[in-house]
Amino acid sequence: MTSSNLTSRTAWQGRSWRLRVDSLLLPDGSSVEKGIIEHPGSVVLVPLRDTDNGPEVLMLRQYRLALDSHILELPAGTRGWTEDPLACAQRELREETGFRADNFEDLGCCWPAPGLSNETMTIYLATSLQSDPLPQDSDEIIVVQPVLLKELIGMALDGRLHDAKSIIGILRTDQFLRESI
Amino acid sequence: MTSSNLTSRTAWQGRSWRLRVDSLLLPDGSSVEKGIIEHPGSVVLVPLRDTDNGPEVLMLRQYRLALDSHILELPAGTRGWTEDPLACAQRELREETGFRADNFEDLGCCWPAPGLSNETMTIYLATSLQSDPLPQDSDEIIVVQPVLLKELIGMALDGRLHDAKSIIGILRTDQFLRESI
Repeated sequence: MTSSNLTSRTAWQGRSWRLRVDSLLLPDGSSVEKGIIEHPGSVVLVPLRDTDNGPEVLMLRQYRLALDSHILELPAGTRGWTEDPLACAQRELREETGFRADNFEDLGCCWPAPGLSNETMTIYLATSLQSDPLPQDSDEIIVVQPVLLKELIGMALDGRLHDAKSIIGILRTDQFLRESI
Repeated sequence: MTSSNLTSRTAWQGRSWRLRVDSLLLPDGSSVEKGIIEHPGSVVLVPLRDTDNGPEVLMLRQYRLALDSHILELPAGTRGWTEDPLACAQRELREETGFRADNFEDLGCCWPAPGLSNETMTIYLATSLQSDPLPQDSDEIIVVQPVLLKELIGMALDGRLHDAKSIIGILRTDQFLRESI
């Protein structure tokens, strides 16, 4: 270890995550504050259905306050602190796309930003989709935008798709489908 | 729009990023606080060199306070607020791996966590490596761990590699090398 923890405090508590600030003692005797997002974890969905042109994914076009823009991304949502990932996945899928899925395939986890957050994202491929909407969250601005999987794979690899969880979800889906043939 | 911004304040200012808290008015007349990480952006490096067994990547095994564990990840670093991405990339590569690169290939950007942060990561493939170390940051605990690219591609796709920026950097490198043949 090159530093040790002196104190720890909650600097801000939001609806779904909180900021913890640790004071660290460095080897030279000085101290520094480091901010850590304490996060309950989240789920990411790849809702896939067949079309005459090949499989397509129900992507979202969603307003993101942090970027002050509408971005293309997979459906996703933050878990409650004690919520089961699969229950959260089904709920978010219905809220954000209006569909439920009969099949969920676990495509593994990822850490979006381990340098500053303990968030773990669990990624599911969701298939056998049926219309079964739940009301959207009142503070979300979402439009469903189906995109062919083949097109998304190209976008993930050449840099046109920017959202990290979406890039990973799309490329793991591609791999899963190749192995399932 | 389903909400409008009432007030905005800086709730915490760290060395490299700050937490902004916005108070939002919802359509039902209630208000809610939303936390946004204001971040200067970062760079991610894929330092690649040839071996008799195929190309290998200089990965890091690094302690991450947020996860309280040592994780496998690509070299990366936060930019200064006015720092040029490529200058930051060269500096971080030398600090974290002890090598400089003569060639940098831009593999595009990604947003690690657009739901709560405006951070943009710029990913570079770094080749023609030569020993040229800079001192490591005093609060970082890093060991260089070379791993074959082929092995990392498998880990990124099957879920054994968890760090989002590393998954994306490795898979875009694979695509870049395929197109360069």
